Amino acid sequence: MRALISRGNGLSLERDYPEPTPVHGEALIRVLQAGICNTDLEIIRGYMSFHGVLGHEFVGVVEVIYGAEPAQQYRHLLGKRVVGDINAACRRPDCYYCQRGIFSQCPRRTTLGIVNRDGAFADHVLLPVENLHLVPDNVSDEEAVFVEPLAANFEIMEQVHIRPTEWVVVLGDGKMGQLAARVLALSGCEVSMVGKHEEKLALVEQRGISTYRLEEAEQMVEEGTRRADIVVECTGSEQGLALALRLVRPRGTVVLKSTVADKSILHLAPIVVDEIRVQGSRCGPFEPALRALSQKLIDVQPLISARYPLDGGLEAFEHAQQRGILKVLMRL
Amino acid sequence: MRALISRGNGLSLERDYPEPTPVHGEALIRVLQAGICNTDLEIIRGYMSFHGVLGHEFVGVVEVIYGAEPAQQYRHLLGKRVVGDINAACRRPDCYYCQRGIFSQCPRRTTLGIVNRDGAFADHVLLPVENLHLVPDNVSDEEAVFVEPLAANFEIMEQVHIRPTEWVVVLGDGKMGQLAARVLALSGCEVSMVGKHEEKLALVEQRGISTYRLEEAEQMVEEGTRRADIVVECTGSEQGLALALRLVRPRGTVVLKSTVADKSILHLAPIVVDEIRVQGSRCGPFEPALRALSQKLIDVQPLISARYPLDGGLEAFEHAQQRGILKVLMRL
Ligand SMILES: [Zn+2]
Ligand SMILES: [Zn+2]
Repeated sequence: MRALISRGNGLSLERDYPEPTPVHGEALIRVLQAGICNTDLEIIRGYMSFHGVLGHEFVGVVEVIYGAEPAQQYRHLLGKRVVGDINAACRRPDCYYCQRGIFSQCPRRTTLGIVNRDGAFADHVLLPVENLHLVPDNVSDEEAVFVEPLAANFEIMEQVHIRPTEWVVVLGDGKMGQLAARVLALSGCEVSMVGKHEEKLALVEQRGISTYRLEEAEQMVEEGTRRADIVVECTGSEQGLALALRLVRPRGTVVLKSTVADKSILHLAPIVVDEIRVQGSRCGPFEPALRALSQKLIDVQPLISARYPLDGGLEAFEHAQQRGILKVLMRL
Repeated sequence: MRALISRGNGLSLERDYPEPTPVHGEALIRVLQAGICNTDLEIIRGYMSFHGVLGHEFVGVVEVIYGAEPAQQYRHLLGKRVVGDINAACRRPDCYYCQRGIFSQCPRRTTLGIVNRDGAFADHVLLPVENLHLVPDNVSDEEAVFVEPLAANFEIMEQVHIRPTEWVVVLGDGKMGQLAARVLALSGCEVSMVGKHEEKLALVEQRGISTYRLEEAEQMVEEGTRRADIVVECTGSEQGLALALRLVRPRGTVVLKSTVADKSILHLAPIVVDEIRVQGSRCGPFEPALRALSQKLIDVQPLISARYPLDGGLEAFEHAQQRGILKVLMRL
């Protein structure tokens, strides 16, 4: 089959990559569309030293379920459109995380297109049947590709109680920040975005989200006019976290949403004196994301910058790395 | 009156320091005993650039309440032993924190012996009447001096839900770590302490708390045998936080208890990937600390290393800075 492959770093399009080997309890899915994520861009620069097929944001159709019992139990998925949780957990009785339903932290997990599991930039992909979620008919293929990153932002609301009367500031106007602002606004709270790119800030302004240029945010901190209850750090830069800690109010929360940042120099005393909570946040629940799309609460169309066929995968990645570009989709 | 004074840094004993000036709504307290805290040691090295009387852990007797109405309302305190919340808040109707009862974060607050308010290493000290708590008869003066640092450790339980089935690791065997381990053990959870000093570790071992030398903890991390649900960082060192982040399990919590640490280099990716919560923690509620002492749930006597008269204050500070020393008390 065709597949976009990383071998530790870089990227290549292969046309005769082997079809997935059947695994009991897993489903063979024909990929319809898949999206390029910042993590993919990091991986081709060497992050995670991943070897295999890239891609973890996808929608596809279930063609086969391997194993008699799983095939029987999950037969309602056959021929249907699905999205899939990217962490495939061990689900063993002796696993602390699996026994608590925290599959995304299973120490034996594989992760689609990131850790020891071929991803979705290919004609076919495998995932355990438990990982699959039916896509409602009124959610388009393009919308469904956003379920995984939307779920990651619903995770913030799973971790932190966001009150409708609070002020939440999203740092970063990129793909993650755009989705974070849209999801967080659902809680009824006031959301603001801090960013560098006029055209990206304009996208959320249309949705009633106030925006600040980076310099304006710095000035707000200097003047001490107002401090946020919650700051969501989506820039992945060292300066992002430092700004977050100065923007947040005492007893507030800083959510770290990006794995990109390397070692950072952090002044810890303010975290203690102001009693700040710094909360790491990664993957999240798919069902709330599917509900929000189905109920048309979140419009992801304006975030699509380009569409490519899988055969144009290398150009798609070139495009995704350009300044000002948001989501690049691949259609198979 | 006599007072131990810091003028930005260093320490001096003055014998004719002016008596406190009466303030409406504040109480004049005759100090009975006061304890030396690590923050005091930091202040005489220049932390906070504090000018005034040092000392914020104390017990004393209320001699005067200034203002007719407060004197009437709080007359039950007159002649009684009290301890006092160290943060004196503005309590104005337009203060976000005061209106929510979060007096320790009031931006206009003064802090006893730390920020713009003379402390308790003196014959007399002033505090707002609202800050005072009666000391039960069965709590000794020496025990009462520990209420403030004990309260700071009850704050951990105010911020984080500690389940009786969890494993909590306290990093640091000093004054703060000793109290943290004792308070946290009240939740029914398993508590371990990691430290460097045999004699300090022995103090908690007697109380059924398992201990690890620093090297043993490092080895446990290397081998990945077991990871803690909650790690309480009481060392105030850069290495302390780094070790905490490696000791804690995915989705676990690291509580930062010390303001000492300066800029630290921190690898942020693990916080996101493992979805760690890093929680800054400072002052806490006095009543639970008083209840715990009154109910004899916490034995602080073994933590007292030495007792000095106020006239020996400079020697007391010398003593408190020596290796292996825990709490040094001053008796007036
Ligand atoms: Zn597992
Ligand atoms: Zn206030």
